[in-house]
Amino acid sequence: MSEEPVKYLLAESEIPTHWVNLLPDLPGDPLPPLHPATLQPAGPDDLTPIFPMGLIMQEVSSDPEIEIPAPVRDVYKLWRPTPLHRALRFERELDTSAHIYYKYEGVSPPGSHKPNTAVAQAYENAQAGIRRLCTETGAGQWGSALAFACSLYGLECEVFMVGSSYDQKPYRRSMMETWGATVHRSPSEITNAGRSNAEHQTGSLGIAISEAVEVAAGRDDTNYSLGSVLNHVCLHQTVIGQEAVAQMEMTGEQPDVVIGCVGGGSNFSGLAFPFVREVLRGGARMRFLAAEPAACPTLTRGVYRYDFGDTAGLTPLMPMFTLGHDFVPPPVHAGGLRYHGDAPMLCGLVRAGVVEPRAYGQNEVFDAAVRFARAEGVIPGPEPAHAIQAVVEEAQAAREAGEERVILLGLSGHGHFDLSAYDAFLAGQLEDPVFSDEDMRAALERLPEAPAIA
Amino acid sequence: MSEEPVKYLLAESEIPTHWVNLLPDLPGDPLPPLHPATLQPAGPDDLTPIFPMGLIMQEVSSDPEIEIPAPVRDVYKLWRPTPLHRALRFERELDTSAHIYYKYEGVSPPGSHKPNTAVAQAYENAQAGIRRLCTETGAGQWGSALAFACSLYGLECEVFMVGSSYDQKPYRRSMMETWGATVHRSPSEITNAGRSNAEHQTGSLGIAISEAVEVAAGRDDTNYSLGSVLNHVCLHQTVIGQEAVAQMEMTGEQPDVVIGCVGGGSNFSGLAFPFVREVLRGGARMRFLAAEPAACPTLTRGVYRYDFGDTAGLTPLMPMFTLGHDFVPPPVHAGGLRYHGDAPMLCGLVRAGVVEPRAYGQNEVFDAAVRFARAEGVIPGPEPAHAIQAVVEEAQAAREAGEERVILLGLSGHGHFDLSAYDAFLAGQLEDPVFSDEDMRAALERLPEAPAIA
Repeated sequence: MSEEPVKYLLAESEIPTHWVNLLPDLPGDPLPPLHPATLQPAGPDDLTPIFPMGLIMQEVSSDPEIEIPAPVRDVYKLWRPTPLHRALRFERELDTSAHIYYKYEGVSPPGSHKPNTAVAQAYENAQAGIRRLCTETGAGQWGSALAFACSLYGLECEVFMVGSSYDQKPYRRSMMETWGATVHRSPSEITNAGRSNAEHQTGSLGIAISEAVEVAAGRDDTNYSLGSVLNHVCLHQTVIGQEAVAQMEMTGEQPDVVIGCVGGGSNFSGLAFPFVREVLRGGARMRFLAAEPAACPTLTRGVYRYDFGDTAGLTPLMPMFTLGHDFVPPPVHAGGLRYHGDAPMLCGLVRAGVVEPRAYGQNEVFDAAVRFARAEGVIPGPEPAHAIQAVVEEAQAAREAGEERVILLGLSGHGHFDLSAYDAFLAGQLEDPVFSDEDMRAALERLPEAPAIA
Repeated sequence: MSEEPVKYLLAESEIPTHWVNLLPDLPGDPLPPLHPATLQPAGPDDLTPIFPMGLIMQEVSSDPEIEIPAPVRDVYKLWRPTPLHRALRFERELDTSAHIYYKYEGVSPPGSHKPNTAVAQAYENAQAGIRRLCTETGAGQWGSALAFACSLYGLECEVFMVGSSYDQKPYRRSMMETWGATVHRSPSEITNAGRSNAEHQTGSLGIAISEAVEVAAGRDDTNYSLGSVLNHVCLHQTVIGQEAVAQMEMTGEQPDVVIGCVGGGSNFSGLAFPFVREVLRGGARMRFLAAEPAACPTLTRGVYRYDFGDTAGLTPLMPMFTLGHDFVPPPVHAGGLRYHGDAPMLCGLVRAGVVEPRAYGQNEVFDAAVRFARAEGVIPGPEPAHAIQAVVEEAQAAREAGEERVILLGLSGHGHFDLSAYDAFLAGQLEDPVFSDEDMRAALERLPEAPAIA
C-alpha cells in the first residue's frame, strides 16, 4: 500500500459545535434586504409569516459564531463528518504537480450538501410548533433533502416540483415520497399562483416558489423553507468548511486555492467561508474560485444591484449580482445552478475581489466530470462538475508554472440521478447554450425600481 | 449531542491485510466442482481459458488467509473502511430492546459491496496481461462494479446486460459507460449464444452468461469475470466481515445474530465468514440468518445436489441448494437475488445448520425498507431490504423476550437505481410472487445427471 493516505476522516466528536457567521467580518456595512412594496429596509417582523423566529434571528445575527443545537448535531452524525479525499489518481490523470483534495458531501442520504441546512431548518420549525414545511424544487436535490429532514422530526413536507422535472426525473420524486413527502406537480391546481399559470405547463422555479410561499403564508401551522441564497442557509453550510479546515491541517498542507460551484451560493459559501474568514482577518493568503454555467453566468456577467429573489416578485429585494429576476436560464443539466441571482454575502465577496468567478460550458464540464469519474470512481453531479473543470484549469496552470499548488475542491454531490446527462454527453448530443448580449440587454430592461448601491 | 456514537469508523491503515478463506475451517471434506462433460472433478487447468491463474489459485486454496495485494488495498482506500452504524433511530421506530448495528457497503462508487471483488479480479487479470474482461449483468450492480474496477486498471470492459434490464434501467447502463465500459443488450448479434436466442428478446441471466463466456473463451486477451457464487468471490468479500469484527469490538458488544441477504451468496459470506470462523473454532456463540426472496427461495426450498452454475449448462457442476439451473425467477425488484443456486461454501454451512435461511415476500420487505429509510435516512437496495425484514422479526422477538439482543445487519447497497420499485410499493402495486409446489416439481424434473452427495 502506498504511503500517502487517500482519505482524511474526523471523529463524530469533531463535528463542529458552531456555525461560522461571516457577516461581521465582511468588508463594509451589510446592505439590508428591502420590502417589496415599500422598498424600505425589511426587518425580522416582515419574515414571521413564513419563517420561525429562530431562523430569522440567525438570518440577521451579527455574532461571529452561532451554536449548533444538540439535536441537529445528533442528526448530522448520520453522515457527518464527511470525508476529505486526496485525489491522487486524478492528479496522475491530469499529469499535474498540483495536490488536489476534495471534500465530498455526496455521502449524505439525499446525496448532496443540502441536508446540512434542511435539518437545521426542520429542527427550528419543529421547535416553533410548526407542523408542515412547504418548498419548491427544480431538479429535486433540495426537495429530497427537506423531505429527509422532515421525516426525522415528524414534520409533514409538501414540495412543489417544477413540472418539466416532475415528468423527467420521476426517481427524485420517488425519493421524496419514500421519505414521506407529498409532491405536487407545479403549476398545480391547489394554489392561486398555480391556477393562474395553468398555461405554463412545464412550470418554472419562480412559479413553484410562489405556490409554496402562498401555501405557507396561508396556514398557521405551515412555514416556507428555502435551500440557498439566504444568510442562514449559508451559515448552516459552514459545517463543510470547518471540517475541511481541520482535515487540511491533518494533511500538513494549506490550500492555495479553494474551488466550488455556485447556483444560489450556499454550497460555495459553506466550504469557503471558514477559509475566507482567515483571509479577511489577515491570517492566511489564498484564492477562491466560484464556478458557474456559461448559460447562467450570474457572477461573471450579472449586474450588482437590488433585485427580487423570485420571478413573481413576492420576496424582499436583495443586493446581488443578477441576470434579472424573471430570466429563465436554458435547460442545462446542472439544474441546481439555474438561478438568476446569488447569495448577497457571496456577491459582496465577489464585488470586493476576494472571490473570483469563472463560467464554463456544458461540454467542457462533462468532459472534466468523466475524467474525474474514471480516475476517482465518484460520478459527480453536474453542478460540482463545474468546479472540477476549474480544478482542471488550475492543475494545468500549476504544471505550466512548475508549482506544487494545493487545490481544495468542494464536491457537493453525486450524479446518480443525472446519468441521462452523461448519456447525452457520451453520445455527443449535449448542447452548449451561452448567455448572450441580447439576453443581457433584455435582463437590464426588466430590473425593478430600487435604490442604487454605492 | 447524545452520548452514544452513531458511527464506528476505522482508519485507512486498518483496511484488512488478508482475506479470510473459510474453506479449511468448514465441516467435512470440501466437495469438488465437476466438469460439465465428464462429471469428473474439475481441476485448475479446466478453468484457465476464462480465469487467470492468480484467481484459480485463490479458488482452490486451503490456506486460512490470503494476502491482499498492495495495489488492491490501494484502490480499496477510495471508499474503505466502510462505516458501521448504530441504528438508534430505527431501534426507536421498532420499539425494541435490541441493539441494531449495520455495516454499510453503499458508500462505494458503484453503490454496493460488488467492487470488493471486482477490483481484486481486475487486478489479477491485469497482472496476467489480460486486456479485456467480459461479464454479464442483470440489474446492473455487478456490471457497474466491474466497469469501475476496469477503469482503474486500464482494462477494457464488455458487459452483456439482460435485455429487459437494458431497456428498463438505462441509468445503470449509463453508469457503466461513464466508467468506459461497452454495454451490449443481450441477446446480442455478436455471439452464437446471442444469435441462437434471438427469439428471447427480453433476455435472461443465463443467456447473458453464455454470451460473456463465449467471448472470453474465444479471445486470448480476454477473460470472464463472475460477481458471486465462486470461492474466490466470497473470499474477496471478507474485508466486510473483518472490518465489522474490529468495529463491533469498538462498540463493546458482540453480535448475537448476524443477518444478510443472499442471491449468489457473496455479500452474506463476506460479512458472516469472519464471525462464522470464530464460531466454528469454538471461540464464540452466535446465530446467522440468510434472507432470500420467497419468489426465489434457494436455501429454504431448494434441493442440495450438484447442478450447473448457468442456464445453458456451460459451467462446472457445483454442490449447492438449487431450484434447477434453468429456473427463471419471477421479475421481483431484488434483481441481485434472482439466482437459482448459491455459493457452495454457504450452502455447506446451511446444510450443517450453522446458517439459518428465511424467505420473505416483496411487500413485507419494502415495508421494512421504507421504515428504515424514514428512520435512518439511507434508502436501501431491494436486496438488503430482505435482511432488514429479518431484522424487524428479530427485533420484535427481542422485545417479546425482553432481551437486549445485539443484531448485526449487512446493508450491502443503496437503492438509488431502484426507486421505481419504491414507487410501485407506495402505490400499492407491488406483487408478491411465491415459488410454488408446481415450480418445485418442474425443477426436480430438469436437474442434470450427477453423482449424489452423501
